[in-house]
Amino acid sequence: MSLNATPRGQRLHIALFGRRNAGKSSLINALTGQETAIVADVPGTTTDPVSKAMEILPLGPVMLIDTAGLDDVGYLGDLRVKRSLAVLEKTDLVVLVVDPGQGTGSFEADVLSRSQARGIPVIGVANKCDLYPDPPVGAWAAALPVPWVVVSARTGQGIDRLKRALVEHAPKDWTLPTIVGDLIAPGDTVVLVIPIDKAAPKGRLILPQQQVIRDVLEHDAVAVMVKERELRHALAGMTRPPRLVVTDASAYLKAAADTPPDVLFTSFSILFARFKGDLNTLVAGAKAVDGLRPGDKVLIAEACTHHPIEDDIGRVKIPRWLRQVAGGELVFDVVAGGGPLPDNLAAYRLIVHCGGCMLNRREMLSRLMQAREAGVPVVNYGVLMAHMHGVLRRALSPFPAALAVLGEDPEGLGEEIWPCHLAKYIPQ
Amino acid sequence: MSLNATPRGQRLHIALFGRRNAGKSSLINALTGQETAIVADVPGTTTDPVSKAMEILPLGPVMLIDTAGLDDVGYLGDLRVKRSLAVLEKTDLVVLVVDPGQGTGSFEADVLSRSQARGIPVIGVANKCDLYPDPPVGAWAAALPVPWVVVSARTGQGIDRLKRALVEHAPKDWTLPTIVGDLIAPGDTVVLVIPIDKAAPKGRLILPQQQVIRDVLEHDAVAVMVKERELRHALAGMTRPPRLVVTDASAYLKAAADTPPDVLFTSFSILFARFKGDLNTLVAGAKAVDGLRPGDKVLIAEACTHHPIEDDIGRVKIPRWLRQVAGGELVFDVVAGGGPLPDNLAAYRLIVHCGGCMLNRREMLSRLMQAREAGVPVVNYGVLMAHMHGVLRRALSPFPAALAVLGEDPEGLGEEIWPCHLAKYIPQ
Repeated sequence: MSLNATPRGQRLHIALFGRRNAGKSSLINALTGQETAIVADVPGTTTDPVSKAMEILPLGPVMLIDTAGLDDVGYLGDLRVKRSLAVLEKTDLVVLVVDPGQGTGSFEADVLSRSQARGIPVIGVANKCDLYPDPPVGAWAAALPVPWVVVSARTGQGIDRLKRALVEHAPKDWTLPTIVGDLIAPGDTVVLVIPIDKAAPKGRLILPQQQVIRDVLEHDAVAVMVKERELRHALAGMTRPPRLVVTDASAYLKAAADTPPDVLFTSFSILFARFKGDLNTLVAGAKAVDGLRPGDKVLIAEACTHHPIEDDIGRVKIPRWLRQVAGGELVFDVVAGGGPLPDNLAAYRLIVHCGGCMLNRREMLSRLMQAREAGVPVVNYGVLMAHMHGVLRRALSPFPAALAVLGEDPEGLGEEIWPCHLAKYIPQ
Repeated sequence: MSLNATPRGQRLHIALFGRRNAGKSSLINALTGQETAIVADVPGTTTDPVSKAMEILPLGPVMLIDTAGLDDVGYLGDLRVKRSLAVLEKTDLVVLVVDPGQGTGSFEADVLSRSQARGIPVIGVANKCDLYPDPPVGAWAAALPVPWVVVSARTGQGIDRLKRALVEHAPKDWTLPTIVGDLIAPGDTVVLVIPIDKAAPKGRLILPQQQVIRDVLEHDAVAVMVKERELRHALAGMTRPPRLVVTDASAYLKAAADTPPDVLFTSFSILFARFKGDLNTLVAGAKAVDGLRPGDKVLIAEACTHHPIEDDIGRVKIPRWLRQVAGGELVFDVVAGGGPLPDNLAAYRLIVHCGGCMLNRREMLSRLMQAREAGVPVVNYGVLMAHMHGVLRRALSPFPAALAVLGEDPEGLGEEIWPCHLAKYIPQ
């Protein structure tokens, strides 16, 4: 099963509006990197709203609704227009595409007022900027009080900035449709390895554990919970192997050792790195750890100012281990708190972000995209911990795209080349 | 394993103080119904504090600490006295036993002030009331500002009132040491049947489910969670049967049908009826349902004023079903809210209590004991629901003492004698 099989109800629904030939269809292609819409120079090629479940990297699965190209004149009362505007009833975000040579008029004002009446955010896109070398956002833009992003669907310019704007205007509670549901089939068994230590709240399960159990049950599968010590025993008691083993990061080595090689294996923190952000971006960040050299600057970014347990990981264990990998001193800066990351990101060779339990998907993705725009690799605690334990490749086994980012070359992975004596620096 | 095998740290620790021959040891026997201490008329038979893990019905497992009998004169500085007073460091409740013929003096005042200094509640017991037909609590009692309970350890008079006082002065967070831990051995598998319906909070598990999972893991066992539809499939995938199946009450019939007869079976609500109250008392209440006759008064007691789901059960489904069983109209009163039950309990033929999710063990037990004192049977929604579904005997399979209360006689059970046409009145 793929993410495309998940219910469309939870996908971010993005509706594109614009006059004929403003370039909506080619903008969709630029966002998705696919030739999915008919692109032509003839005005009005798209005639009816077309909804397509698509993947926009690194946003994840979205529903793009390509409305009919509409003229500024005489559009009211047109059946096609009614059908186009009806999509607002199921839209999270409106993208209003404008050809700077035409500017805006009553059509754009109408889309804006109808969207605002429904509380739907509108992003203005000034397309075809490659054709207009002067600043293409003119007085017509000021008449429409929306955030404007200047792009060229043809050259790709500004597309990353538009993606970030999409994230920043997504609904607060926007998530992926599932945590593990796309990895399992009905009747499968998922084993969850949950150490009971002093940090665990008495008589309770932490929220990520509850969320994964619920997700497994909602997908008609069986959830088996064990402490790390009973994992081998539990596996021996099954007539067929589980589809997936998910471990708490504190039991990586024991759980990986006791899980048969042909069983998919990952951790709660990697599942939530994907659910709350973009796993591929973080895996690319883990790879970049190998390129650290003495003197490099590293930014430790924590989303809140009060997590004593992660403090120890972020401020002691990870810096110590990164120094070992770099073979010398590194310069560490620490930022803590919400909001965007600092402006001077380009000064850093690597960003190490906390798990982001206090951030929603919108906030976490926004930070990852900010790092991408600055050209700085970013990894988080969960993915880096897997790397430090030498189990990152194993813990990515359910995620082929992330494995592709890691690459086949063991030198690009790290865990096969770290000398064994580094094991003592691994957090226990 | 029995409840005696649970860690003593969570048992209610009750220390008995009193002068030689005040009758501490025979009071222990009266509380536990066992001959566990040496009872003699010779003063000071008990010489050193003796801690014993015991079961006081319906309180559950407690630790009774029988201190040395002490004289009022010259007791200070005595090594025995020091050892006796040292038990205050691990005591939740002090019971101060007094022979009314002797009254109180500086010894009792000293025990009280030392207990108060540690925040430990003290209950005064005027023992041997059978020997003092006049009100035996004299002026000496007024000198000691504690609640006094008049008992005779020899005849049993007042013992139930003393038990209720013990409950009412127990620490607020007092619970049993475990929910399922005494039913399972390390390596056992416990299957939890959890329907995912609209009432379930999105992406979460309700607290009782979390508590049972944690308890299973802490006892080195394996927790398997399934929806009712996957139960049969999950059982087929095990190389040996689970030790126990625990179902949500909404899936009683399906879960009971799919669980092999030799596997222990119960429900979350019955586990918590035991954890939070006294299962045997509630089972006796379920039996009493069979004796209802037209015109009988039934009290529906809810602990809070805002649970719309239980309202439907308590105010519609249960009354309808009880009328069917009685073969005619019944008189229903409803009380809602915390605090003690109404004073006129003796007017009722049966009390039907809600699950008590808003009550702690102390509050729930206190209500059950209030009903016992009034001589009125009391059942709760969870136990009654099992009875209404015809699965009460099955759902008590892990609890031999509760099964003994139910009795061997099918006429005392109900589920084998209800005509099938009543099934349509069973809440779904």
